[in-house]
Amino acid sequence: MLKLEEKSNSVEEQPLTDAELDDAWPLLDTAERVEGFRLLNEETAEDFFMRLPSSDQAELLLALPHSRCRALIRLLPPDDVSDLIQELPEERRREFLDLLVPNTRIEVQALLAYAEDVAGGLMNPRYLRVRPDMTVGEALTYLRRQIRSTEGKIAWAYVIDSNERLLGLVSFMHLLASDSNDKIKDIMKTDFISVTEETDQEKIGELFAEYDLTVMPVVDREGRMKGIITVDDVVDVVVEEATEDIHKMGGTDAFDEPYWRVSFREMIRKRGGWLTVLFLGEMLTASVMAYFEKEIAEAVVLALFLPLIISSGGNSGSQATTIIIRAMALGEVRLRDWWRILRREISVGFALGCLLGIIGFFRIILWHELGGLYGEHYLLLAVAVGISLVGVVMWGTITGSMLPFLLRSAGFDPASASAPFVATIVDVAGVLIYFTVAGYFLSGVLL
Amino acid sequence: MLKLEEKSNSVEEQPLTDAELDDAWPLLDTAERVEGFRLLNEETAEDFFMRLPSSDQAELLLALPHSRCRALIRLLPPDDVSDLIQELPEERRREFLDLLVPNTRIEVQALLAYAEDVAGGLMNPRYLRVRPDMTVGEALTYLRRQIRSTEGKIAWAYVIDSNERLLGLVSFMHLLASDSNDKIKDIMKTDFISVTEETDQEKIGELFAEYDLTVMPVVDREGRMKGIITVDDVVDVVVEEATEDIHKMGGTDAFDEPYWRVSFREMIRKRGGWLTVLFLGEMLTASVMAYFEKEIAEAVVLALFLPLIISSGGNSGSQATTIIIRAMALGEVRLRDWWRILRREISVGFALGCLLGIIGFFRIILWHELGGLYGEHYLLLAVAVGISLVGVVMWGTITGSMLPFLLRSAGFDPASASAPFVATIVDVAGVLIYFTVAGYFLSGVLL
Repeated sequence: MLKLEEKSNSVEEQPLTDAELDDAWPLLDTAERVEGFRLLNEETAEDFFMRLPSSDQAELLLALPHSRCRALIRLLPPDDVSDLIQELPEERRREFLDLLVPNTRIEVQALLAYAEDVAGGLMNPRYLRVRPDMTVGEALTYLRRQIRSTEGKIAWAYVIDSNERLLGLVSFMHLLASDSNDKIKDIMKTDFISVTEETDQEKIGELFAEYDLTVMPVVDREGRMKGIITVDDVVDVVVEEATEDIHKMGGTDAFDEPYWRVSFREMIRKRGGWLTVLFLGEMLTASVMAYFEKEIAEAVVLALFLPLIISSGGNSGSQATTIIIRAMALGEVRLRDWWRILRREISVGFALGCLLGIIGFFRIILWHELGGLYGEHYLLLAVAVGISLVGVVMWGTITGSMLPFLLRSAGFDPASASAPFVATIVDVAGVLIYFTVAGYFLSGVLL
Repeated sequence: MLKLEEKSNSVEEQPLTDAELDDAWPLLDTAERVEGFRLLNEETAEDFFMRLPSSDQAELLLALPHSRCRALIRLLPPDDVSDLIQELPEERRREFLDLLVPNTRIEVQALLAYAEDVAGGLMNPRYLRVRPDMTVGEALTYLRRQIRSTEGKIAWAYVIDSNERLLGLVSFMHLLASDSNDKIKDIMKTDFISVTEETDQEKIGELFAEYDLTVMPVVDREGRMKGIITVDDVVDVVVEEATEDIHKMGGTDAFDEPYWRVSFREMIRKRGGWLTVLFLGEMLTASVMAYFEKEIAEAVVLALFLPLIISSGGNSGSQATTIIIRAMALGEVRLRDWWRILRREISVGFALGCLLGIIGFFRIILWHELGGLYGEHYLLLAVAVGISLVGVVMWGTITGSMLPFLLRSAGFDPASASAPFVATIVDVAGVLIYFTVAGYFLSGVLL
């Protein structure tokens, strides 16, 4: 911010560069952003504006004079305008739509009818079209005229019949490499991947990744061409979906905006909500422990190992749930695989439980030999802790791996089975397992 | 698997479709995959092979006869061959390199010299080139001849001078829309984004996302053209990096392979390693609690709330660390922002701590009124629990948000500050805070 203020004092000497503004951007408030944006020279400002995420574009437009807004909003292709409009407050959308040229406005209004996270909301309604019975030479001439009205990165033209139905694709490469008298319908690629307007963005991301696509056509149920989705929008989707999952898996509601742009109030709401739910769940441990109050009073030494035992359950559960949620998101594991996963995770949990159980067992023996801390029945205590660890870690692993399946089959997002959520569920069971096992081994001795 | 077996019995009737094989693929072992692949008809098999991840391609090649391997490996562009070769065992790489045509082999060997996760390891050394003093017409003719030897999706040609230096880019669109007598050097785009061979893949992903690129040139330090990176490879990188981060944040070493392909032994190693480290850390709680053994013996009721208190610290820490790690990965937060984050997270932690503290306070009062569980000094107990919660949640939030900065500034991956790792660190502090606060309020009464 300081840097920017210095700049604005010396604005007569030299304009701000976009790299400088880029660097300061995340930390600036709205007034400073507008100020910084005004200091860019016109061409740089346009490039800078086009590169901003839609929420930041909306922020600038709301603060700039309408004459400037008109020039800026007209730079954007219809799909980007539609994203931007959705970031504006409901009551001000109309006035910004009115800044568009009439054709674009109609395209944008059509896009606004779709949900943001389906193909219809991602697609660009402008694409290059050719007819199946054109020759390659005719197609090239015809394409030249369309080129200025589409984004410059597209390497494919779409072959559309008189009913607007998509018949095939031809790449520019293909056009250039073909004889100019060949018919389009003879050289077009007819085995292509397409989606309908309602296809979910997560599915679209998977298709792009699996088939290494750079662009994909969107058609309606009757096979009529509606628009194209380009891979740059899909990269944003993939990143956005991963962020959502990561936030949920960390035990917080997903943020819609970058860290610095989330208000204090919103931050407390998104984090406090889950923390409260987890806190209420964890209260059960206090109730369960009250039930074992007598045992704790008689053998305080038992309480010493309680955090160790329940956290081991929580950690093994966090691991398992994280691994399964991600495997589900990548399509490696499907709902019907739950039984295979369960069988596998039972063995994994048993092995991990034995590992920690053995370490725990020897830790107690060793400390006792060194310090005599744990009384004459330290060996039974060590056995009880060791066996509890096997049980708790197995339980954590099973709960953590199965919870995402339960959530998904109940129609919830599996990523809601966050590490803290699983840890909380496992804690209660951990207390029960530990005191039950300890009761069995130590009754009549310590208890 | 069953489905596949049925298929292979009825192989005479109809070949396996790639959709069927796709569906069964993740669950098949190597022998079944090879069997399934053999059941595809030749053209489908080629498409299927090209779509597989490199590790699966390697698995097939190792099991197929050399004659078949030769045909398959020659389908791939050099960058994909290089990825595949790296998946093969060291001692067998030579024999597969020998299956390539000599030119490709030289290209692949050059690529193999780069690390997998830098630009050099991602790039394709084949691209379309033109000279600056060609006319548009000459360039189009010249490009036609090159087209067959490059991947079909590329929409840009690169303008290279006689010293192999990259001067600019021209898109096919641009070529088609220009007059055929224009000089390339007059129409080329000279403000382009490029990276050097050593640029890290994470940085490349950020550039693609920020500038909405579909392809990016790679140059050496002297500006000489080395190859191009296409966005489909970048989508894979973005997904791979997110998976790595998610695994680490869940408290496990990142898997290099999909869930089903990780062997039992590897699974135990990757998960058991971290679990053991966390377990050893958590042992500190037992030592710290031994120090408070007298207090617990005198007021067993204190022990009842211990899991509640330490898990609240763990949960708030997991949230904070998750949010900060992701914000770092997305470039929203940089190392030098730590002080701003600390100030903000202190307020957030205080607010969240008060929220849970107040709930905890009233929970004890309410339960006591209902059941008379907590003895005559329940009010002091409620105050001690409430205040401990404020302290523990604040401590969790601060630790969780600062740990990623500490790790990064020490040169480690911030994503290693996993939810379980933070929870473990916070647990020890939680025990200390709780018993200290309780000692202050309850000494002379319960203690």
